[in-house]
Amino acid sequence: MSRKREIHLGLFLQGAGHHVSGWRHPHAEAGSENFDLLRRVSQIAEKAKFDMVFLADGLTSGVDAHPSTIARFEPLTLLAALALVTDKIGLAATSSTTYGEPYHTARAFSSIDHLSQGRAAWNIVTTSYARTANNFSKSHPEHDERYAVAEEFVDVVRGLWDSWDDDAFIKNKQSGVYADPAKVHVLDHKSKFYSVKGPLNIPRSPQGHPILIQAGSSGPGQDLAARTADVVFTAQQSLAEAQAFYKSLKERVVKLGRKADDVAVMPGFLPVIGRTAKEAADKLAELDQWTDLKSAMPLLEERIGHSLTDYDPDGPLPDLPISDQLRSRAELLTALARRENLTIRQLALRVAAGRGHHIMLGTPVEIADRMQEWFDGRAADGFNVMPPFFPEGLEDFTQLVVPILQERGLFRTEYSGSMLRDHLGLARPALPSV
Amino acid sequence: MSRKREIHLGLFLQGAGHHVSGWRHPHAEAGSENFDLLRRVSQIAEKAKFDMVFLADGLTSGVDAHPSTIARFEPLTLLAALALVTDKIGLAATSSTTYGEPYHTARAFSSIDHLSQGRAAWNIVTTSYARTANNFSKSHPEHDERYAVAEEFVDVVRGLWDSWDDDAFIKNKQSGVYADPAKVHVLDHKSKFYSVKGPLNIPRSPQGHPILIQAGSSGPGQDLAARTADVVFTAQQSLAEAQAFYKSLKERVVKLGRKADDVAVMPGFLPVIGRTAKEAADKLAELDQWTDLKSAMPLLEERIGHSLTDYDPDGPLPDLPISDQLRSRAELLTALARRENLTIRQLALRVAAGRGHHIMLGTPVEIADRMQEWFDGRAADGFNVMPPFFPEGLEDFTQLVVPILQERGLFRTEYSGSMLRDHLGLARPALPSV
Repeated sequence: MSRKREIHLGLFLQGAGHHVSGWRHPHAEAGSENFDLLRRVSQIAEKAKFDMVFLADGLTSGVDAHPSTIARFEPLTLLAALALVTDKIGLAATSSTTYGEPYHTARAFSSIDHLSQGRAAWNIVTTSYARTANNFSKSHPEHDERYAVAEEFVDVVRGLWDSWDDDAFIKNKQSGVYADPAKVHVLDHKSKFYSVKGPLNIPRSPQGHPILIQAGSSGPGQDLAARTADVVFTAQQSLAEAQAFYKSLKERVVKLGRKADDVAVMPGFLPVIGRTAKEAADKLAELDQWTDLKSAMPLLEERIGHSLTDYDPDGPLPDLPISDQLRSRAELLTALARRENLTIRQLALRVAAGRGHHIMLGTPVEIADRMQEWFDGRAADGFNVMPPFFPEGLEDFTQLVVPILQERGLFRTEYSGSMLRDHLGLARPALPSV
Repeated sequence: MSRKREIHLGLFLQGAGHHVSGWRHPHAEAGSENFDLLRRVSQIAEKAKFDMVFLADGLTSGVDAHPSTIARFEPLTLLAALALVTDKIGLAATSSTTYGEPYHTARAFSSIDHLSQGRAAWNIVTTSYARTANNFSKSHPEHDERYAVAEEFVDVVRGLWDSWDDDAFIKNKQSGVYADPAKVHVLDHKSKFYSVKGPLNIPRSPQGHPILIQAGSSGPGQDLAARTADVVFTAQQSLAEAQAFYKSLKERVVKLGRKADDVAVMPGFLPVIGRTAKEAADKLAELDQWTDLKSAMPLLEERIGHSLTDYDPDGPLPDLPISDQLRSRAELLTALARRENLTIRQLALRVAAGRGHHIMLGTPVEIADRMQEWFDGRAADGFNVMPPFFPEGLEDFTQLVVPILQERGLFRTEYSGSMLRDHLGLARPALPSV
């Protein structure tokens, strides 16, 4: 792709808002189970020419879990519904390799790609939380096994997506030939974890392959992303950290024979926008006032993988063994606490506000400047925007920040194509020659 | 329910049409992967006040499979999309207990029930075809084990649907309580096949429980239906057979402490409608002309569970052992061949035309008469209508037959409620008392 480099924008769609107390804001229309809100918000993002909306997911929820995880739509059915109320914007959803089946996953995303005429994306996750296993009659595999399974799972899915040539379904009424039997590729996959014969019972989808997204930042996560992903979501707290991650990821991509531009790195950030710096700080303070240590601590403990109740909240984060299951997130937060000398309480409140993602606080110009700095500084090819609450937090961003990016020529003013693959500037994958 | 007994109508939605050669008709707009067709056809059924549209499914497809199975949408994503382009009509899809997970299934159907505001239905199948296992890295369980698994699977799904009281999500911004922790029911299911903790991460859905449909006609299939189903789909070739099945099923229902009216029995039939008897016969002949033995035999062999290539197609159906996997369908077809003295060729063509379902051939009045005869004669509470091809085959039925049923007071002229449960006259299930 030789076209001009432009920022890619995703909307991290979470009805309850991304600030832990976002749903309590007087202007917030919660929550994640409110389809009308999710529909309007997706349409706002489309009007602002975002590349995609993105749905996280989880397969377990405690009784006192956060509103964003305690009640939400099943993402694939939600995506199919959103496909019918939008026209151009990409539609990304999370689906687990550890708790899924390649045939089901391949089929569902192909189906959504057909329904949306080429706008589907699959965010590949291996599922961190061991308690998920309690809902699936099995035990939770270890980190490295989860990634080994994921590698094979993704290969099977991609193989199934290539079951039929693009022109296989000739539907000749005269001859009675619906699908040309010379244009089918029976996968016949048999390896360590999966045995899947194929073919998939749906035509090859408009994008050839739905877009693949990966968000694991551990070594095995980066390896999987470098080999298979079109987009990488990541949580980075500082420009320097983000640049290091960007560099590391792109090097892995190139090492595997792909072009650096074949993968878009998109850190998440929580925009808190004021007309002045003070107004922005006040907005964040307004949100933070509803966050107490009691509601913030579970989020931190979940990411660190340890109970912290025995430690002084106003003391430093203790040295704790980092669980294999949560490696990348726990390391990121430990580094943040050390770098900024944060107490447990301060770290918990920081996590609560931005969920481990960077908080961009300031005027529209300051935020556009920061985005440009990350973009020009090769810390990001784009961003996953995480409004603190909906819909106002998104409207602020699309009305105040997006026009600045557009004036600077950093972001599109119109879609140039109709598929997510077009928005990302990625070529349609050719069928492997037989 | 003391309201007047009325015929229930489902549209068996299959883009390729239900006659094996339906897609080849000059007026047919195939096929099952054509969303625009499925959308328009669903809207036609809704305009005619049908109770529901229904999607069959399969998780395997041969290279030379029929157009209806070789390429189709994944049903749950398709249903979610159809929810957005219809308002009142029920939306039923098939999902397998043998190749699914209760947590995923409970969640997806709840999600569709929310998206459609109370119109979702799950057709519970155990998956007959052993070759399905080739796509799922496992071996195919025997018939009786499949049903034992299904019984427990359905219980887990229903338990997960009751995870939250209807008024659990109070979303109190002042107190910060999103879900009332006193109103959650953690399932904690542990039994022979499944261990599923819960709760489900979505509020209880508009219908309380999405509608349950069952279509297995074997003994274990009828037992599962009698205990759990709201609707039973069935293939019956004659009034007498249908009456016997209806009686057997309703007796099982009553024996389990439910009311006979709690379950609607809906046989499928293929309507071939002419303004005269001759025009109808000509229409069927026009369709049959495209069906040769080569295209018809695989459908028969699939249902019988044996290759028939070594037998004279113009001789009788040989006595063959009936596979445990295909018990109910194989028995039905063997009985039909014996009763009507059909050759293999004749049986194959009959299966090809109606897929083992009854073919109703005649004028609109004749077809309405036959439906009324089955309905009044307690052979059916309604019908699953299987047009030979789309959209014309459906339009003929809605324009010519439905008005006669309405004039006779046998079928609604307007929806009396907005949920599928309302159309079926079924009460919303109460939450089990704790």
